[in-house]
Amino acid sequence: MNIPLKVTLIAGGVGGAKMAEGFAALDGVRLSVIGNVADDEEFHGLWVSPDIDTLTYSLAGLIDRKQGWGVADEGHRALDVLRRLGQNCWMSLGDRDFGLHIWRTMRRARGDRPSTIAADAARAFGVVPQILLPTDDRVQTRIRTDAGWITFQQYFVQQRCEPEVREILFDGIEAARPTPEALEAISDADLIVIAPSNPLVSIGPILAVPGIEDALRAAPALCIAVSPLIAGKVVKGPADRMMAALGMRADVEGIAERYRGLADLLVIDHADEAMSKQVGAHGLKAIVRDILMPDQANKARLAGDIVQLAGSWRAA
Amino acid sequence: MNIPLKVTLIAGGVGGAKMAEGFAALDGVRLSVIGNVADDEEFHGLWVSPDIDTLTYSLAGLIDRKQGWGVADEGHRALDVLRRLGQNCWMSLGDRDFGLHIWRTMRRARGDRPSTIAADAARAFGVVPQILLPTDDRVQTRIRTDAGWITFQQYFVQQRCEPEVREILFDGIEAARPTPEALEAISDADLIVIAPSNPLVSIGPILAVPGIEDALRAAPALCIAVSPLIAGKVVKGPADRMMAALGMRADVEGIAERYRGLADLLVIDHADEAMSKQVGAHGLKAIVRDILMPDQANKARLAGDIVQLAGSWRAA
Repeated sequence: MNIPLKVTLIAGGVGGAKMAEGFAALDGVRLSVIGNVADDEEFHGLWVSPDIDTLTYSLAGLIDRKQGWGVADEGHRALDVLRRLGQNCWMSLGDRDFGLHIWRTMRRARGDRPSTIAADAARAFGVVPQILLPTDDRVQTRIRTDAGWITFQQYFVQQRCEPEVREILFDGIEAARPTPEALEAISDADLIVIAPSNPLVSIGPILAVPGIEDALRAAPALCIAVSPLIAGKVVKGPADRMMAALGMRADVEGIAERYRGLADLLVIDHADEAMSKQVGAHGLKAIVRDILMPDQANKARLAGDIVQLAGSWRAA
Repeated sequence: MNIPLKVTLIAGGVGGAKMAEGFAALDGVRLSVIGNVADDEEFHGLWVSPDIDTLTYSLAGLIDRKQGWGVADEGHRALDVLRRLGQNCWMSLGDRDFGLHIWRTMRRARGDRPSTIAADAARAFGVVPQILLPTDDRVQTRIRTDAGWITFQQYFVQQRCEPEVREILFDGIEAARPTPEALEAISDADLIVIAPSNPLVSIGPILAVPGIEDALRAAPALCIAVSPLIAGKVVKGPADRMMAALGMRADVEGIAERYRGLADLLVIDHADEAMSKQVGAHGLKAIVRDILMPDQANKARLAGDIVQLAGSWRAA
């Protein structure tokens, strides 16, 4: 009997969930995912946690595959009524989704730890990997546009990533304490993977929780990052434009610079092979693989490539 | 141009809503309904107000006519998820309904008056009559069965009115203050009607709010009660069994006894004509009419009968 490989994945929303599904499909892997809570926001008095829910729904096989987020077989009757009652309903929340938000809000009001709530939800939905929160404290991304500071969901959903991003901050980050579960998943991992998620607003607020980045640096495990960019373009979302707007290189070199000292390897796409040297200049070894994950087979294939990489690295 | 007749209806859930729909259909009537809040209960952290919602949905034309309560074109996706998350879901709450409960809970948490919330909901749903609360304070019916004290919804929905009722109390009633809107609707009315609702748990907790019964006694308007019983049987609900269990007469005489000194007339069914004298013995004049309201025509017809009665009473 083989001892399972303990993989800890640092993951944002959709890209992170795809990578998580890849590892979850592998035999011999025990997966823990540390998700992002800084996209959380209150809507209609309910606490919504989009990135954590995307992980949960994806790993539970409940995700709306066509849309890439939300639950399949969803209705919008509750939102219809809220709109009729005069609420601003730009955040599309489905009826099934509301069930989870109602429950989460009730449990938070009772004083339950957000980590426990997330773990209980995952278990109820039949998710096998552990879904961990980097912190139980309230941390919220704020984005400064030319029209002022807005929340992440206002930027991402309401304004469809249209405004130029001038500045990003994580409200509450200084006082946030890391969860013991996240710290343990990092220190105990056999392999740490940074998912191809937005480095600024998905991975960024996880790393920014005091103690998390230190734990990553101190962890004995190999750390492999997967580039969210292919040929300077993001598969989904605003990462490339955000990076450029904030004066970063919006390419694999920019990613290497961001994860310098944290990740040992950076998995990049064939399209970026020519930039392997620039990646190396930041202290990360570039590994070229097919990093697109259009379907379940490719998610598992990329996760398998990463596990194999880790094996050959250890053997070397 | 005629001055409209100001009718104030004291009403519980389904029977009260039917009577309200009858008056709402009449030209020349300006209707205010004082509803029951003592059936309110928290479910999954949300504040649910079944009687007030039944009034609102009925007067908005949104009620599920087949079921008699809840909203038409309803879904149950949120409840499915709550059940999956381990919640006890004996209280059937639909997705549209959840939209209203989410909104109500959000507004209550902000400190808005329950009366204002109910009025705003009614307006948003296009309800023309005023829906008023007897109190903005928390009053909740508790029912003692042989197995102990339970809430009204536990008795009514979860246990389907099966246990014998040993005692009823309205938790919080001593400290409850009447709303100025309810007091004004009583003192300013041209006609006060007590709907054919359960006298113990629907009309009872409205009358028990300190100040309401005094206001009714002091009101200059004629007060007409409509019997919820026909030949000792209730049309819907447990009123007859409850009355008998608590040592009351479960017939129109029991109703007359209950409304003694409050109502001037008691409208009873043809089936109870022989009991007119017993009703009269409690100081109420019995008026015999067809009091069943199986459809909209009969609701308006009965409401019209009552308005006519009031007219001839004033003329006499």
